[in-house]
Amino acid sequence: MTFPGTMPNAFIPGQGKLSPEEEVLVARRQRLLGPAYRLFYETPVHLVRGEGVWLYDAAGNAYLDTYNNVASVGHCHPHVIAATARQSALLASHTRYLHDTVLDYAEKLLGHFPPELSHVMFTCTGSEANDLAFRIARARTGGTGIIVTENAYHGVTHTIAGLSPSLGAGVPLGEHVRTVPAPSGDAGAFTAGVEAAIADLLRHGIRPAALIVDTIFSSDGVYAEPKGFLQPAVAAIRAAGGIFIADEVQPGFGRTGEAMWGFERHGLLPDMVSLGKPMGNGYPVAALVLRPEVIAEFGAKARYFNTFGGNAVAAATAMAVLEVVEGEALQANALKVGAAFRDGLRALSKDHAAVGETRAAGLFLGTDILSPETGAPDAARAARLVNRLREARVLISATGPKGHVLKIRPPLVFAQEHVDLFLDRLRTALHGEEA
Amino acid sequence: MTFPGTMPNAFIPGQGKLSPEEEVLVARRQRLLGPAYRLFYETPVHLVRGEGVWLYDAAGNAYLDTYNNVASVGHCHPHVIAATARQSALLASHTRYLHDTVLDYAEKLLGHFPPELSHVMFTCTGSEANDLAFRIARARTGGTGIIVTENAYHGVTHTIAGLSPSLGAGVPLGEHVRTVPAPSGDAGAFTAGVEAAIADLLRHGIRPAALIVDTIFSSDGVYAEPKGFLQPAVAAIRAAGGIFIADEVQPGFGRTGEAMWGFERHGLLPDMVSLGKPMGNGYPVAALVLRPEVIAEFGAKARYFNTFGGNAVAAATAMAVLEVVEGEALQANALKVGAAFRDGLRALSKDHAAVGETRAAGLFLGTDILSPETGAPDAARAARLVNRLREARVLISATGPKGHVLKIRPPLVFAQEHVDLFLDRLRTALHGEEA
Repeated sequence: MTFPGTMPNAFIPGQGKLSPEEEVLVARRQRLLGPAYRLFYETPVHLVRGEGVWLYDAAGNAYLDTYNNVASVGHCHPHVIAATARQSALLASHTRYLHDTVLDYAEKLLGHFPPELSHVMFTCTGSEANDLAFRIARARTGGTGIIVTENAYHGVTHTIAGLSPSLGAGVPLGEHVRTVPAPSGDAGAFTAGVEAAIADLLRHGIRPAALIVDTIFSSDGVYAEPKGFLQPAVAAIRAAGGIFIADEVQPGFGRTGEAMWGFERHGLLPDMVSLGKPMGNGYPVAALVLRPEVIAEFGAKARYFNTFGGNAVAAATAMAVLEVVEGEALQANALKVGAAFRDGLRALSKDHAAVGETRAAGLFLGTDILSPETGAPDAARAARLVNRLREARVLISATGPKGHVLKIRPPLVFAQEHVDLFLDRLRTALHGEEA
Repeated sequence: MTFPGTMPNAFIPGQGKLSPEEEVLVARRQRLLGPAYRLFYETPVHLVRGEGVWLYDAAGNAYLDTYNNVASVGHCHPHVIAATARQSALLASHTRYLHDTVLDYAEKLLGHFPPELSHVMFTCTGSEANDLAFRIARARTGGTGIIVTENAYHGVTHTIAGLSPSLGAGVPLGEHVRTVPAPSGDAGAFTAGVEAAIADLLRHGIRPAALIVDTIFSSDGVYAEPKGFLQPAVAAIRAAGGIFIADEVQPGFGRTGEAMWGFERHGLLPDMVSLGKPMGNGYPVAALVLRPEVIAEFGAKARYFNTFGGNAVAAATAMAVLEVVEGEALQANALKVGAAFRDGLRALSKDHAAVGETRAAGLFLGTDILSPETGAPDAARAARLVNRLREARVLISATGPKGHVLKIRPPLVFAQEHVDLFLDRLRTALHGEEA
């Protein structure tokens, strides 16, 4: 069973069918890394190698990776690993010396944004990017109030964990943080939620600083439609003196198919945009893209330095990733293959009462799993399906406040044959449930 | 001129002797990265390559790197870059799958700590490690009060910037943060400062959570002696219900010569130890090492996941760095070469009234620069010396609340010939000041 705040698809020690070698590994992990770490699956997967959309375990078994959005251009892409190796051998130094690569990358990256978003600052993680956005939002607005969705995840620093309710009741929200129900196809309801949160902040004497959303609402259960539903909510936060931060750590870099960034699907111009996970295809690099007027106040009072952020290897690696996204037309691939994937999942729901709505944009898909008897969200069944798929060597996970949404976001090099394989294995898993 | 909070050795646009190409680079940086970034030196250095203790500019000039503690085993060390390249080509995935490398590294790293410090958690930056330490300290103690030194630097997340007074008056301290004067050779005075801060927290109804110090007091001006002076301050915070966090991001991994970690020089057993900069020789990897009882409460209520933290490439790279530190006996080298460096700087002070006290442990050295007329701290002279050295192709910087301390912390592969070269160039720079 899952409930809001517990982690869907977490390994529970003592369960699962581990080999003696894996039992040793799990015990060693517990001893060395301590109690705050979590593994995926009833029977965790022991990985040793990756290539394209495939991950391999220690016994040589191949797993179809339908989950890892970090290795977005495919695991161990040769163009990317060559760039990392080449620049590592040349220079790895930081932004307090002049260096061309970080500027070349900044220019190329900003070329994918509307011209108003003309600065980029480099961090190592999406958490750091959102944390920096928070600092800048406070300096810009003079406010402290933050509005997030009710199962949002934006990162793990103290401040950002405090505006990530999906981390669970054991992680306190910041006292100036307000949550709003996730969008569910009703733009008016979402806007009303944001307006109510603004009113509640003001009622408590707290000036609003920002509305921040993951533009695909990943941890809320994936909400992509109708395009444009974010616009009135953004207008509301701006009218209240706050700014809008688009968290593109998950949807960014072409995954949503129709656009390079999730906010573009909504016809929006954010004040700041945070980037992360797929940016370096596994190399730790992240960034905050922003409008110059937003950083003016912060820049006049404070400096920002991140020792590894924007180092020469990070920049060269991220450059190679962007070259692959462009060169292999991965956004177009995400659109095409994602549409087929979505249609396949929707077709499955016709034959299986346990398969509910599929919400998707490109290769970011969420499929509700329901009780065939009651039609209610069925987290236990979703967890069983995730684990059946893992036994069938297909990797996904579950998400959403009720834990009943299959979370599907494969590397962008996913092809039709992989969609077919996935649907075939899911069909088998559903039959297993029904047997 | 510098004053507390401004950044020593920052480039000021419009000054310096930049080439037309460098002027273009500086303008491009400003346009792309915005106003919060800073360059070093009156005339910034445009780097293209590094090797061992040498950095090379675009014109092919070699600079002796006497400053960069990140490339601790030497720029582009072949054993390290080979490990990065090898693992990048194999798998870069994260800690929610079983993977051997992160455990092998955790085991090797913890082997360098007292047995009580038996867990390690991985992050990407020292800022994230200190931020996680803060979260754990709050969960452990139920307190919120933090004590830091008056020019401390612990990182750039919102929370950690709030306990880093060296970032300047434009960056507000957290309201539960208290500062104490840096140690200055008088253990009693430092302890009294910590006791006064505890009393002030309690007087305001704030329960103390932690004392956190950089164990070499880098941004305070480098304070290494007398060994053991930290003990009574640590006893005081523990008596008040708080814990002690050793920030080893700068002194750690053998730099102080006598020990692998700065806290060991003080005969201390910290509750948590944060690691960063040199850990991956430039690859973004950092960690928090801790006693199991400290994380028990946090681990029962919260999970921790850092997408890139402890990924397979980070672990393989950090493993290679530790192998080099051990295999090339760099701690012993830091002790031997550091002692000669310290003695050379002390000898210089006999001939030059501008050269004051040198404080050092291994290859972490701080030398006061004074007005020859008054004997007072002379930040302007320190800045001129730093820039004269840069013109002579030797890289260092300045630090301390008054900005008058030469900050010297070369890669640990520094040899006697490099010390001799440094001292020769510094002597020339001092003569230039006196001419």
